Amino acid sequence: MGFIARVDAAQRANNSLLCVGWDPELEKFPAHLRDTPDALFAFFKAIVDATADLVCCYKPQIAHFAALGAEDALLRLIRYTQAAYPAIPVILDAKRGDIGSTAEKYATEAFGRYGADAVTLNPYLGHDSIAPFLKHADKGVILLCRTSNPGAKDLQDLDCGGKPLYQRVAETIARDWNGNRNCLLVVGATWPQQLAEVRAIVGDMPFLVPGVGAQGGNVQQIIQNGRGKATDALIISSSRAILYAGSGEDFADAARSAAITQRDEINRYR
Amino acid sequence: MGFIARVDAAQRANNSLLCVGWDPELEKFPAHLRDTPDALFAFFKAIVDATADLVCCYKPQIAHFAALGAEDALLRLIRYTQAAYPAIPVILDAKRGDIGSTAEKYATEAFGRYGADAVTLNPYLGHDSIAPFLKHADKGVILLCRTSNPGAKDLQDLDCGGKPLYQRVAETIARDWNGNRNCLLVVGATWPQQLAEVRAIVGDMPFLVPGVGAQGGNVQQIIQNGRGKATDALIISSSRAILYAGSGEDFADAARSAAITQRDEINRYR
Repeated sequence: MGFIARVDAAQRANNSLLCVGWDPELEKFPAHLRDTPDALFAFFKAIVDATADLVCCYKPQIAHFAALGAEDALLRLIRYTQAAYPAIPVILDAKRGDIGSTAEKYATEAFGRYGADAVTLNPYLGHDSIAPFLKHADKGVILLCRTSNPGAKDLQDLDCGGKPLYQRVAETIARDWNGNRNCLLVVGATWPQQLAEVRAIVGDMPFLVPGVGAQGGNVQQIIQNGRGKATDALIISSSRAILYAGSGEDFADAARSAAITQRDEINRYR
Repeated sequence: MGFIARVDAAQRANNSLLCVGWDPELEKFPAHLRDTPDALFAFFKAIVDATADLVCCYKPQIAHFAALGAEDALLRLIRYTQAAYPAIPVILDAKRGDIGSTAEKYATEAFGRYGADAVTLNPYLGHDSIAPFLKHADKGVILLCRTSNPGAKDLQDLDCGGKPLYQRVAETIARDWNGNRNCLLVVGATWPQQLAEVRAIVGDMPFLVPGVGAQGGNVQQIIQNGRGKATDALIISSSRAILYAGSGEDFADAARSAAITQRDEINRYR
């Protein structure tokens, strides 16, 4: 079963469009964990165990692990999650992008080394930079279209023959890159109008939507503007607001409560 | 001294615009090294020791190390090179790009963890995704403009109000992102016409030019079309053609010979 079908199954099983991101920030960890030798693994194992029945996938952000030199903890966390909760896919949020021969190495990093079920990628280098990922038909290839940050406007809004660049990117991916039906797009929760515009271009291609919670995206607008026709086609990602909902020994319970609140808020508008 | 000045000094000291890329491909390593426990370190240490008087910088490609789980070897190689040859800067070829808070983590990865002197980045997410790197005024921020691969055409050639996207990217970076004068651009050796066009836009902003050697870029055209006015403003990168020039126990001598040939060919047209 391919990544998109697996996410769809997890969304139905858990009645949830919520994805919990793994963004380790040690200074926000509970005090009793912060200085333990395997704090990263202990923290996220507890988060996963507390939320696996509430989510449709997890999304480790590799930059946060790389900054800490914690590739080994990331690897063990992905393996643990896939073994303990095989119905919940894991997205490696890496936003890689390089020329063909190097892209093959990044595909090995994401799908071989880490065994991720999907990876986020930057489309700027074109189709041959993405082909080494696309050929893994069972894996998800999640391409940046309209990112959640304010600076998204700088280049993604450039007028390309009457349409902004992010719409041309969406058109190109839907038309030329999706032969294996394993493409998804990143469209930020902070841009509800753009969510609707991209949805009109790509049919039911699923969106990974970051930017709810700490970044302030409006859930009602995301659902109304971003939903597909036949399926929800939305993976709504939240990280800090769930991970750091509590800071005591009960941090996992606090994360569970925050995840329930977020899941239910999303379901209110579905 | 900032990265661009340091490269300029190394170019004058070694009379060379050549950058040697570190793209480990174990199957191309000499047989006597291939199965040794620290093959990566031994191979690239030998390459560096054989070429440090012939180059203006080195450029490890992190994807190749990440695919092998070899972050530790990469770190030791960078440290060795900077200690043994402090005049030769090291570019981390990572092509990262993410939103502000995550970009901070990638800046920590590149400049903190690895201690790189410069890093390659993807501009698609806009200024705030690059700001955490730009603020390190002594570091080089090398932004993708026109990449060397055939697929560069897919998005980088999109017509943005009468000019292709890669030219708009160059304009934006030169106008809005270069306040610390630490920006450089990636322009592939395989696109000589585009080299001239981007040069006309950005003055003497230096280019990192990959794609000579294995990818077939023409050195004469690169120099003629890509040179700056006051300085060469070119870093010409070659990896496989130098690293794997030999496959025996004399591989470092063969790499040295290939680097001399490449340096001299470049200098013929300066």
